[in-house]
Amino acid sequence: MKLLLLNGPNLRLLGTREPDIYGRFTLADAERLARETAERFGATLDCFQSDVEGELVAKIGAARGVYDGLVINPAAYTHTSVALRDAIAASELPAVELHISNTHKREAFRHVSYTAPVCVAQLMGFGLMGYALAVEGLVAHIRGVVR
Amino acid sequence: MKLLLLNGPNLRLLGTREPDIYGRFTLADAERLARETAERFGATLDCFQSDVEGELVAKIGAARGVYDGLVINPAAYTHTSVALRDAIAASELPAVELHISNTHKREAFRHVSYTAPVCVAQLMGFGLMGYALAVEGLVAHIRGVVR
Amino acid sequence: MKLLLLNGPNLRLLGTREPDIYGRFTLADAERLARETAERFGATLDCFQSDVEGELVAKIGAARGVYDGLVINPAAYTHTSVALRDAIAASELPAVELHISNTHKREAFRHVSYTAPVCVAQLMGFGLMGYALAVEGLVAHIRGVVR
Amino acid sequence: MKLLLLNGPNLRLLGTREPDIYGRFTLADAERLARETAERFGATLDCFQSDVEGELVAKIGAARGVYDGLVINPAAYTHTSVALRDAIAASELPAVELHISNTHKREAFRHVSYTAPVCVAQLMGFGLMGYALAVEGLVAHIRGVVR
Amino acid sequence: MKLLLLNGPNLRLLGTREPDIYGRFTLADAERLARETAERFGATLDCFQSDVEGELVAKIGAARGVYDGLVINPAAYTHTSVALRDAIAASELPAVELHISNTHKREAFRHVSYTAPVCVAQLMGFGLMGYALAVEGLVAHIRGVVR
Amino acid sequence: MKLLLLNGPNLRLLGTREPDIYGRFTLADAERLARETAERFGATLDCFQSDVEGELVAKIGAARGVYDGLVINPAAYTHTSVALRDAIAASELPAVELHISNTHKREAFRHVSYTAPVCVAQLMGFGLMGYALAVEGLVAHIRGVVR
Amino acid sequence: MKLLLLNGPNLRLLGTREPDIYGRFTLADAERLARETAERFGATLDCFQSDVEGELVAKIGAARGVYDGLVINPAAYTHTSVALRDAIAASELPAVELHISNTHKREAFRHVSYTAPVCVAQLMGFGLMGYALAVEGLVAHIRGVVR
Amino acid sequence: MKLLLLNGPNLRLLGTREPDIYGRFTLADAERLARETAERFGATLDCFQSDVEGELVAKIGAARGVYDGLVINPAAYTHTSVALRDAIAASELPAVELHISNTHKREAFRHVSYTAPVCVAQLMGFGLMGYALAVEGLVAHIRGVVR
Amino acid sequence: MKLLLLNGPNLRLLGTREPDIYGRFTLADAERLARETAERFGATLDCFQSDVEGELVAKIGAARGVYDGLVINPAAYTHTSVALRDAIAASELPAVELHISNTHKREAFRHVSYTAPVCVAQLMGFGLMGYALAVEGLVAHIRGVVR
Amino acid sequence: MKLLLLNGPNLRLLGTREPDIYGRFTLADAERLARETAERFGATLDCFQSDVEGELVAKIGAARGVYDGLVINPAAYTHTSVALRDAIAASELPAVELHISNTHKREAFRHVSYTAPVCVAQLMGFGLMGYALAVEGLVAHIRGVVR
Amino acid sequence: MKLLLLNGPNLRLLGTREPDIYGRFTLADAERLARETAERFGATLDCFQSDVEGELVAKIGAARGVYDGLVINPAAYTHTSVALRDAIAASELPAVELHISNTHKREAFRHVSYTAPVCVAQLMGFGLMGYALAVEGLVAHIRGVVR
Amino acid sequence: MKLLLLNGPNLRLLGTREPDIYGRFTLADAERLARETAERFGATLDCFQSDVEGELVAKIGAARGVYDGLVINPAAYTHTSVALRDAIAASELPAVELHISNTHKREAFRHVSYTAPVCVAQLMGFGLMGYALAVEGLVAHIRGVVR
Repeated sequence: MKLLLLNGPNLRLLGTREPDIYGRFTLADAERLARETAERFGATLDCFQSDVEGELVAKIGAARGVYDGLVINPAAYTHTSVALRDAIAASELPAVELHISNTHKREAFRHVSYTAPVCVAQLMGFGLMGYALAVEGLVAHIRGVVR
Repeated sequence: MKLLLLNGPNLRLLGTREPDIYGRFTLADAERLARETAERFGATLDCFQSDVEGELVAKIGAARGVYDGLVINPAAYTHTSVALRDAIAASELPAVELHISNTHKREAFRHVSYTAPVCVAQLMGFGLMGYALAVEGLVAHIRGVVR
Repeated sequence: MKLLLLNGPNLRLLGTREPDIYGRFTLADAERLARETAERFGATLDCFQSDVEGELVAKIGAARGVYDGLVINPAAYTHTSVALRDAIAASELPAVELHISNTHKREAFRHVSYTAPVCVAQLMGFGLMGYALAVEGLVAHIRGVVR
Repeated sequence: MKLLLLNGPNLRLLGTREPDIYGRFTLADAERLARETAERFGATLDCFQSDVEGELVAKIGAARGVYDGLVINPAAYTHTSVALRDAIAASELPAVELHISNTHKREAFRHVSYTAPVCVAQLMGFGLMGYALAVEGLVAHIRGVVR
Repeated sequence: MKLLLLNGPNLRLLGTREPDIYGRFTLADAERLARETAERFGATLDCFQSDVEGELVAKIGAARGVYDGLVINPAAYTHTSVALRDAIAASELPAVELHISNTHKREAFRHVSYTAPVCVAQLMGFGLMGYALAVEGLVAHIRGVVR
Repeated sequence: MKLLLLNGPNLRLLGTREPDIYGRFTLADAERLARETAERFGATLDCFQSDVEGELVAKIGAARGVYDGLVINPAAYTHTSVALRDAIAASELPAVELHISNTHKREAFRHVSYTAPVCVAQLMGFGLMGYALAVEGLVAHIRGVVR
Repeated sequence: MKLLLLNGPNLRLLGTREPDIYGRFTLADAERLARETAERFGATLDCFQSDVEGELVAKIGAARGVYDGLVINPAAYTHTSVALRDAIAASELPAVELHISNTHKREAFRHVSYTAPVCVAQLMGFGLMGYALAVEGLVAHIRGVVR
Repeated sequence: MKLLLLNGPNLRLLGTREPDIYGRFTLADAERLARETAERFGATLDCFQSDVEGELVAKIGAARGVYDGLVINPAAYTHTSVALRDAIAASELPAVELHISNTHKREAFRHVSYTAPVCVAQLMGFGLMGYALAVEGLVAHIRGVVR
Repeated sequence: MKLLLLNGPNLRLLGTREPDIYGRFTLADAERLARETAERFGATLDCFQSDVEGELVAKIGAARGVYDGLVINPAAYTHTSVALRDAIAASELPAVELHISNTHKREAFRHVSYTAPVCVAQLMGFGLMGYALAVEGLVAHIRGVVR
Repeated sequence: MKLLLLNGPNLRLLGTREPDIYGRFTLADAERLARETAERFGATLDCFQSDVEGELVAKIGAARGVYDGLVINPAAYTHTSVALRDAIAASELPAVELHISNTHKREAFRHVSYTAPVCVAQLMGFGLMGYALAVEGLVAHIRGVVR
Repeated sequence: MKLLLLNGPNLRLLGTREPDIYGRFTLADAERLARETAERFGATLDCFQSDVEGELVAKIGAARGVYDGLVINPAAYTHTSVALRDAIAASELPAVELHISNTHKREAFRHVSYTAPVCVAQLMGFGLMGYALAVEGLVAHIRGVVR
Repeated sequence: MKLLLLNGPNLRLLGTREPDIYGRFTLADAERLARETAERFGATLDCFQSDVEGELVAKIGAARGVYDGLVINPAAYTHTSVALRDAIAASELPAVELHISNTHKREAFRHVSYTAPVCVAQLMGFGLMGYALAVEGLVAHIRGVVR
């Protein structure tokens, strides 16, 4: 089982960016935890981060037939990107949407997600831990134990 | 560490109710999985289900000082109950909101959650598995390993 | 053929409550007319009234496999209860939604019905007579003569 | 007692038009059932169908002093015609609005009715049977037995 | 003169619940102040608290002919309960709506009151003192000295 | 303790203006009742009425350091004046907003108050009596007995 | 100078239709007053009434080059007819929109006029007299004395 | 018969202010035409202009018992002043609202009138001529010849 | 292959009506181009124009079984006619919606099309040429070469 | 070159009013800085402050032909005054709108400006410094060096 | 005549991506058909596809003076990109907007196009064939035969 | 003091792009003026332009610790980019938002700025001069002389 973890804009700054909202861990920490969790469940996991919407779109477009599932933290593009939504739907891969903070506590424009309706599942507010839970949940979904 | 799992209206019907949306597992299955997960992480977990908004409110009102955290699937009351929101806020307990289905794929009125902004975290779409992930995430949050 | 008639909040007051809007008949009158109509068409009909949303939810939850159809006057919960909507959908029973007054003549918030989209049919404005018409229509629907 | 049944645009196509939504009966079937129901209750019933909003308006305008009540299925004009609303109000005749399908299950623009607030009562979703129920309910209303 | 004081969901927690918003007095304090104020003006006052919307509805339904007026703090149900609105209107009793905090300073959904339009008067933001002012104002209204 | 009572546009007409809505008492009656109530609680109260938004703004601007609190019936300016809101906030004085009628029973544009969020408390619907209650509540607030 | 007076749906019923709103004069009265006013100012005036939107459209389409200006009471079509708006604009004739009642006092959907933005002027609420004022104003506009 | 003509903010600038919208006549021209029209119909007419909302409010407040009707061009205050609306309603005088330009052709915020619903009639787009038509219509209304 | 071209209200005026928006060609030009294009692709094409919504509805209602596809320029009825939408859907014929101008450049109410969702395709802004492109595209669609 | 600086309601309180939002400088400081900046660029500048909307309107109405440009801080009237907008447009003078705080960080009703669309330019958030920048920018605009 | 065809995000996946919506042809097929159509009409056509909004913006920015017109399928960026809109407007080139599917049949957010108002024409729902029709229409427009 | 000037999409075209809106100066002119202004105040200024949202995000992400403040003209991304907003907030640098034209005079979607609430200040409408004013204001803000 091969998984792809995508992180969107500004997430390269994790650890320094507004730690009250996003925590003190780094992107490397998150990627490592996700990879270790995947391995714990017998899967491998590749990582990709980009600030450019179209690069994320292209990466997902190339994922079909290569990966078995996606974990994606679209960050700001969650709320503005129809292109990412279309990319996930076109990939026909199961995807889990992840947010570090609880976006329901924040500005109203963060309450809308273009990507969530084409994902299998969504989780938010667990901070670093969310990367482990998302991988665990995705693996379970792919193995059919979710229901 | 003592946790309380609350399930809202119509969830007693799990396993028979619209299995395409809610899966084929029963409420007992969900409660057992949550309890086992809690125990796996060294916590205990009590369960409560009610179709009556006010009984859920009262249960949460009595939880303060007794429990260390809440996992709640408010079901339909997610979208209509300010009373549940106030109860969770008043309890000052960390809470994780859980939905079996991905509500973003459903009617627009299910995209609004009164309770999520007063919870620590939210997850949806993982089916039965969501009960395990929610407990795991809540324990990690309480132990301070989330961030 | 077994039918269940459900009456929602404040309907116990029929006959005394704002007779210009709701008429001068009592809840007992409405239930008797519904029962007699059911019997006239060879069916039996049980009645249930509650002011508590969750009790109506629970009653519908227990109706599956026991009744062949529902007549429901959700009263105020028509406009606020996702839980009742979910209960009716979960029951997979044909349901007719009934209102004594013509809600289109009243406040804008009464123009929205959470329950109507999961019912087979809806009627309003016929006063007491609506209870007879709803039963007659539901029987015809179940017998397949509606279309 | 003389009643007038009005059917609006596209209803001439009943029986062939989208039978999953509108059923397999014809306009003649509906008019016959309505007429027989009226006669069963000691009333007579005339029928009129037009695709032209203004012809329906004119027919209602001429109904005052001739008929004792109206049954109207305004079809698409339900949602767009202030002129029909004004015609019904100007006639000062009791009117019952009728829809074959349950419009609450359909597009949002079908949830608005310009005509319902000036009618006595409304029913929808009973298919062919609705024509009988509407006549029965209107007769009862005119005879004062509704309340 | 007999008055009824109703307190809605979560108000049993007064004194411990978010004291910055709701103050440090208890429900017993509020009920005592209301009762003493009533007695100071020659009236008696009964108290009722429930977290269950339908129980509040039922209590008001039974109040007609027994009480001369209502003071009600509907708490969260202010913003979501058409059933409470209908109950107050059906009782045909003068009612004063009361909030401990100034809801205009809080979330937008707290700016809407279903119940206020069927009450005689409303007051908010006076904390514990509001219970005394509401009773004083209601007594004056019933005695006809308000205008 | 020195209090300032402000009355906004059209209130000079009290007693003659639409008595069904505003009652039969005059502005002088209201000011006298407010003054007597203040004196009963050991405070003095000055009165000011103007039809000009900017004069009310200027009066409040000059109140700081002179008065200990404000009672204000902004009348029509409640719903349109950001300037009054800013004036009250700038004064940093505790203010009670008062309406003679229950604005929740009136047009939708009267349901919005620009001034209430910067006031300590609000009351409406008590007619003349509201002037006494507002002063009593303000005094209690200033003396710290409100909570 | 040749003028055309157009009256829309239901106006044939003037004098009998809801006289509290529309007055007791007949369509013939209105047309006669308009004609006499035109003649008083040295113009002639033709009259046309139809309940059919498309017939009004066609009449206006044929007016270009024949008439010098239009007085139109579009009645219900004011609020729903883009076709009438397009017809008036296409005619490139100066038009005055006229309503017998003050539509601002009525339902919200009557506050929108599709036709007014393509007319020179609009008047409402003058009852029968409005027909004289509209003609007088239109003549003045055409003669260039309006400004 | 005594009439009062009120002109609102910026109308002192007529003749110089944006002549494409407001024409080339002056305020004196408009007042003279209104006065002459009043005299032609056997009435007298006083004029008042102010840029200050509250001064217009006060003038209307003092008009009761002195004048038999109002012609008012509220200019910008049409769209923002609840105080003017309340003043006109409180005066219980018949009022005609007048605009020089056709506000339906302009910005969306000019399509809303707070004052029109409390006036008898409204006219717009006739330029200078509107002052004559408004007076003529108001006189007819007061003499009861409008309907 | 038999095609039907429908043109809606005001289109009889093409060539004279606002040529900056609609061009200088006539309805006859458009119908001739459409017919020639159809013949070029081996199809025949009939033409129908009406200003009356109901006549267009009736024409489409009679098209089933007679024609293989529709080209329709609903003009103003695009934005207001649910009846036309229902007629096209009921016909179960492939339809192409056509506009001469680019409605996206015009008023907001022209951005909504009731008919487009029940058509196969839509094109706008090509002027006269649009009639050729619509026929060409419809023929290709019917022959299955579109995809 | 002669400039006019206008300051709106509550700005007389600068220095004492909510210094976290508006800073610690006084109105005199702001006027002095603006005047010195104007003089530095070879212009003179007059100052006017009023809490009364109509006085600001009148001042602008009198500015035409006297001044070459306006700097205006409309304060609260920014969001509510169509009259000020009309006054600025009528003056046909270039105007710069100025806010001390960044209104985008504040309540939603402060995000709307009636006056900005009739000004040449707008700036906000620079505190006292904004008065210098506004004058500098206005001078450059008038001298034609802006573009 | 030189034309530029631009295809937006995810369109590289044509042929594999959701063929029920987008058909079974590939991007190469579409580009070939567009190129052949251009050549049939004596023009040349270059092709460009990118998933990156800014690269499409840059390409259009460089098109001025090089190309005579644009055919653009902005895909998801249709609904979210003001930058593309600005790029097309800045290029001052005639552009035709093209969609493979009929976006009116899909989610509401796809009914809004930022780019259409700055294009000459738009077509949708013709699948592969749309690429030929768009080029044919654009050539006709540039040659001036459209009207 | 080191400053960074960022220019967003399409701004490379300045001088040729719609000069009526954006002026005749080039991007090089704007950058030179900004740099000279910075130097005049003792600061240095680097420049960056990109059409790609993500490249602007990345540039800001790398600015922390390198620059003391940002001047940003986000152009079209102002209205659509949450990613830019997050980047500015994450940088914790003082930023001034700049627009060449007065966006309040343009389409409604340009009245919304995602970035302004996380900037210190905003200015618009000063054309080329705005680049000098923005730098001057930013320097003053950083030096603490703004308030």
